Amino acid sequence: MITIRDVARLAGVSVATVSRVLNNSSAVTAETRDAVQQAVDTLGYRPNANAQALATQVSDTIGVVVMDVSDPFFGALVKAVDSVAQRVQKHVLISNSWHQEQEERHAIEVLIRQRCNALVVHSKSLSDAELGNFMDQVPGMVLVNRIVPGYEYRCVGLDNVSGALMATRMLLQQGHTRIGYLGSSHAIEDEEQRRAGWLQALHEQGITPPDVWIGSGEPDMQGGEAAMVELLGRNVQLTALFTYNDSMATGALTALKDNGILVPQHISVIGFDDIPVSRYTDPQLTTIRYPIVSMAKMATELALKGAVGELDTSARHFFMPTLVRRHSVAARQNVGPVTLSNDSAM
Amino acid sequence: MITIRDVARLAGVSVATVSRVLNNSSAVTAETRDAVQQAVDTLGYRPNANAQALATQVSDTIGVVVMDVSDPFFGALVKAVDSVAQRVQKHVLISNSWHQEQEERHAIEVLIRQRCNALVVHSKSLSDAELGNFMDQVPGMVLVNRIVPGYEYRCVGLDNVSGALMATRMLLQQGHTRIGYLGSSHAIEDEEQRRAGWLQALHEQGITPPDVWIGSGEPDMQGGEAAMVELLGRNVQLTALFTYNDSMATGALTALKDNGILVPQHISVIGFDDIPVSRYTDPQLTTIRYPIVSMAKMATELALKGAVGELDTSARHFFMPTLVRRHSVAARQNVGPVTLSNDSAM
Repeated sequence: MITIRDVARLAGVSVATVSRVLNNSSAVTAETRDAVQQAVDTLGYRPNANAQALATQVSDTIGVVVMDVSDPFFGALVKAVDSVAQRVQKHVLISNSWHQEQEERHAIEVLIRQRCNALVVHSKSLSDAELGNFMDQVPGMVLVNRIVPGYEYRCVGLDNVSGALMATRMLLQQGHTRIGYLGSSHAIEDEEQRRAGWLQALHEQGITPPDVWIGSGEPDMQGGEAAMVELLGRNVQLTALFTYNDSMATGALTALKDNGILVPQHISVIGFDDIPVSRYTDPQLTTIRYPIVSMAKMATELALKGAVGELDTSARHFFMPTLVRRHSVAARQNVGPVTLSNDSAM
Repeated sequence: MITIRDVARLAGVSVATVSRVLNNSSAVTAETRDAVQQAVDTLGYRPNANAQALATQVSDTIGVVVMDVSDPFFGALVKAVDSVAQRVQKHVLISNSWHQEQEERHAIEVLIRQRCNALVVHSKSLSDAELGNFMDQVPGMVLVNRIVPGYEYRCVGLDNVSGALMATRMLLQQGHTRIGYLGSSHAIEDEEQRRAGWLQALHEQGITPPDVWIGSGEPDMQGGEAAMVELLGRNVQLTALFTYNDSMATGALTALKDNGILVPQHISVIGFDDIPVSRYTDPQLTTIRYPIVSMAKMATELALKGAVGELDTSARHFFMPTLVRRHSVAARQNVGPVTLSNDSAM
């Protein structure tokens, strides 16, 4: 690998002089500058970002930590961060935590050690205390979809409970009373909050759903399909379903179709997130919109401000979800419960 | 920010001694080691990855460059790289090129400057010469889905033409002759190759498709939907369609459904890639499987070997796609062309 010493030797100057040229110091003659630049070009020397970051203690990169970048929700988050980064000529480095505490910690540490001075972190496994420690070290670290007490001005949150209430109340207004919930098997805050919203809306109408109305699986299409199959097997006569996210709803739609159950005629389905695929399911999915693009953009702007010490500590950033009406919800039919072909009713 | 100087001061030793302890040098007494470790813990000092990388000229990170990580195809690629990285306790940093030449170059440069000594790069915009230059500088850089002459042993490729031939021949065998193509609006190699395969299969049967049989759009669901609507408007009586990828096919299915055209009864559709969503469309999508997981894993292993100079320069890595039969293709019906409700025929 070509080093700064090779450049100095070819240009006939000291290493310190090469360094001054590369860092645009004014204390260099035009002649020397040209000689060094020519040596750099001839050798194809690449200034080392690590050395540059050391010298200035900043880097030109914004770090992002997400749980699984292959999940469309996190794909949208990363894309939004990048759109802000491009505007300020910074580059984004992405790191995955794969839903694991150890990996989540490691992902943050790697980006801090790379001296990313702006960090957008989606963390669900680490404690408030540990995240607080990280944020004390890195003034440009901001959390998205998580509120840590004492650091609210550096947290961008979503009212998950209200979103779930909104979804479930809509189903209730359509005459449904037997409303199931398809949840995520990952024990994270969002899961608890969305389930709590569903439960609260049912309680408001005097309905106490038994545990058998709840299915659970990985928060992706395959997980939703498997959870729906499991729920169908329980024969609990549901006429509507609220799902943890749109990916699970998409999987559930396939399982229902495979069993000859029509959506929304036999069963209504409402999702959460409004990822792109929800416009391409059959029927198109009615869902709760998670404004992740706006939230991720705001988090990135806060992180950039935090990195230069310009945050307003009194500001709060709590977003509300909204209802997106498409074609997977209908009024409850007075035709009795849905029956599977073997005459067992759902 | 806590520096190595603060640690030295608290431990009552020199900066050089702290450095020796942190780099596990043996020339330090146990007593000194303990004193330094205690100061590190007390201050919460974090060794700087940039400084460590400078000292050793390696980093513990594998870099990945993709075009758009929010595209499920690239999500699968990144996930596969990460699975190999986790096995060898390395961390993955991801950088996006957003289908742009300038960004593609910049993404590679950022990761090289971060001293990632293993790089998996999906590059379509840069020339063979420029990629060759990068690969000369970084022995652990490997290309996926691209073959650069002279660097074949560090390239993992796919036979796109054969995949497109396979798809189109399958449609021909089902009696279709009016077979359209829904292509990507990005002028990349894959697009040319898949279109060439479609064309070759038709030519083999003496069919010369007019340009109006070709639709074009962004290679995502929305792009496929728009391109299909455009194609429907041309009234060219197609009975089958090969699409650039599964995302476009998914969008096309929605456009067809919205126009009351049944798949596969009225028109057969075959995709390319076999991304997860193709199992959840209605009908489930018949497609050409792109073994991206195997290819990305191999590319990562090659990159790790390249970084330590252990590559077999005579090896070649060229993968073949395979056919996945689901429910979006059927034999051509002898019922005349599909008609839209306003009596215009497609």
